[in-house]
Amino acid sequence: MLPSWAEGAAKSAIVDFVARVTQEGGRDYVPPAERIATFDNDGTLWCEQPLPVQAFFLADRVKALAAKDPSLAARQPFKALLERDHATLHALGKKGLAELFFATHAGMSDEAFYEVARAWFSSAKHPKFGRIPEQVIFEPQVELLGYLRQNGFKTWIVTGGGVDFVRVIAEQAYGIPREQVIGSSAKLRVEMRDGGPVLMKAEELASFDDREAKVQNIGAHIGRRPILACGNSDGDLAMLRYAKSGPGARLALLVHHDDAEREVAYDRGFKVSPLAEALDRADEYGITVVSVKRDWNTVFGGNHP
Amino acid sequence: MLPSWAEGAAKSAIVDFVARVTQEGGRDYVPPAERIATFDNDGTLWCEQPLPVQAFFLADRVKALAAKDPSLAARQPFKALLERDHATLHALGKKGLAELFFATHAGMSDEAFYEVARAWFSSAKHPKFGRIPEQVIFEPQVELLGYLRQNGFKTWIVTGGGVDFVRVIAEQAYGIPREQVIGSSAKLRVEMRDGGPVLMKAEELASFDDREAKVQNIGAHIGRRPILACGNSDGDLAMLRYAKSGPGARLALLVHHDDAEREVAYDRGFKVSPLAEALDRADEYGITVVSVKRDWNTVFGGNHP
Repeated sequence: MLPSWAEGAAKSAIVDFVARVTQEGGRDYVPPAERIATFDNDGTLWCEQPLPVQAFFLADRVKALAAKDPSLAARQPFKALLERDHATLHALGKKGLAELFFATHAGMSDEAFYEVARAWFSSAKHPKFGRIPEQVIFEPQVELLGYLRQNGFKTWIVTGGGVDFVRVIAEQAYGIPREQVIGSSAKLRVEMRDGGPVLMKAEELASFDDREAKVQNIGAHIGRRPILACGNSDGDLAMLRYAKSGPGARLALLVHHDDAEREVAYDRGFKVSPLAEALDRADEYGITVVSVKRDWNTVFGGNHP
Repeated sequence: MLPSWAEGAAKSAIVDFVARVTQEGGRDYVPPAERIATFDNDGTLWCEQPLPVQAFFLADRVKALAAKDPSLAARQPFKALLERDHATLHALGKKGLAELFFATHAGMSDEAFYEVARAWFSSAKHPKFGRIPEQVIFEPQVELLGYLRQNGFKTWIVTGGGVDFVRVIAEQAYGIPREQVIGSSAKLRVEMRDGGPVLMKAEELASFDDREAKVQNIGAHIGRRPILACGNSDGDLAMLRYAKSGPGARLALLVHHDDAEREVAYDRGFKVSPLAEALDRADEYGITVVSVKRDWNTVFGGNHP
């Protein structure tokens, strides 16, 4: 059970929690319908360094746009994307990247976007860790998601990344169906094409799914307080506290990337999704910190169906 | 199979469609993950006459508020609610009723609202048809939802009614989990209570889930075009056309309430959710009209777990 998780406090907390909520007749028993687990994606389920995966997709999209309009390549932030100028891109922050992402896909139907992103994923490579998504997803987390589902949980992604981008690979990478992905989103407009309605992506942000918005979107999409939540940054803190502060047994997990050898060691200094307050308050809020170095036997998996 | 559906064109269309999309190797085969079916609720899954069920709940809520503030009882539209003055209430339309609904529950947490609504459902009675929800839900539709699920479909509700109201009974009445209900919604605000975040219902409308908004919300929540949709009013027409106009086999069903004896006969004249354009265009758009009188052997069920 959970072979990529090292024996220790984090693994024990997970196994004990699952045993308690699934024990029929036990004090902490939770009926299957209420076994909701929500996971952040960037930095929680897959690597977000040196940039979130979506930024690589965005760079390729800007490359394609710049081929048609060369003036784009000279303008910021497009220039930084094309040159992989991480300092400039980090300064945009996660919201800036999300807005840029939606801006470059405005005027596409959601169905056309799906095909474009699917084609990209079929040959995408991470600059350091290999094929996307297979080789950048965290093996222990894939195991954890499967273990939770075997125990009657419904697993959800609640990501600051673009919902339509993550939906393309959620089933393949994590076994999570498209409709169980909540994320940042652009507004959708209904337009008539060939006599039938089509959803067109607008430039305007509908939701930047970060911090309190993660809690609001859980309310809107799921309508239940999760009993387990997992994240890796201050952007996940509200969701972790939300899951943790309901009645009964609850588990909040915070992944701390402290393994420079096998992945990247970072927390406070990473502008895209800093981890500072959540780390400082973890004890006080009852959040279980997961150390990549100590708690994960394996970081990256190979092939996941 | 579908015993409450009379043999005829509507039942045949359903059974043929399900056979085609589930036949492995067949030309119209659809993998289970894509078997998305979306149903309107008021007038489609349960009775909406003389008023949608939510209006009865709202009236009881206003009664409780008027007990604390008697001046309310003299003001419109509260007065109309308390007096069951249908003409005035119909003139508000579905959106007006939704706004009033959210206004009277602003400042409650979503979890507190859930308990209030659950308590209400435990003893609620329809003025004509009996216990709510058991005796106001349409037996043929409960059968249809179950039949679709047996055939690998994921069934969703996409309602103009309040999402949090319908979520309370969706599992019990229709076997649909809370997170597969999309509906009209108020904005949610995150507030800190006893050290933990709570979602508070705001007065402001987030989404009035009617007409094009049903299509937009399907995109936001499901991220897939349904292959089957079912509704009963012009407010469902955009969703029916959206489902119907994708590639491959598709089915759009429009319930026509034409049975004054067993239920109520109405269409164009009903202000809350008129049926006029959808009826006129059904043929042109390839929508299958379901006649309550002709196609349903039974209208109301008795007890549904």
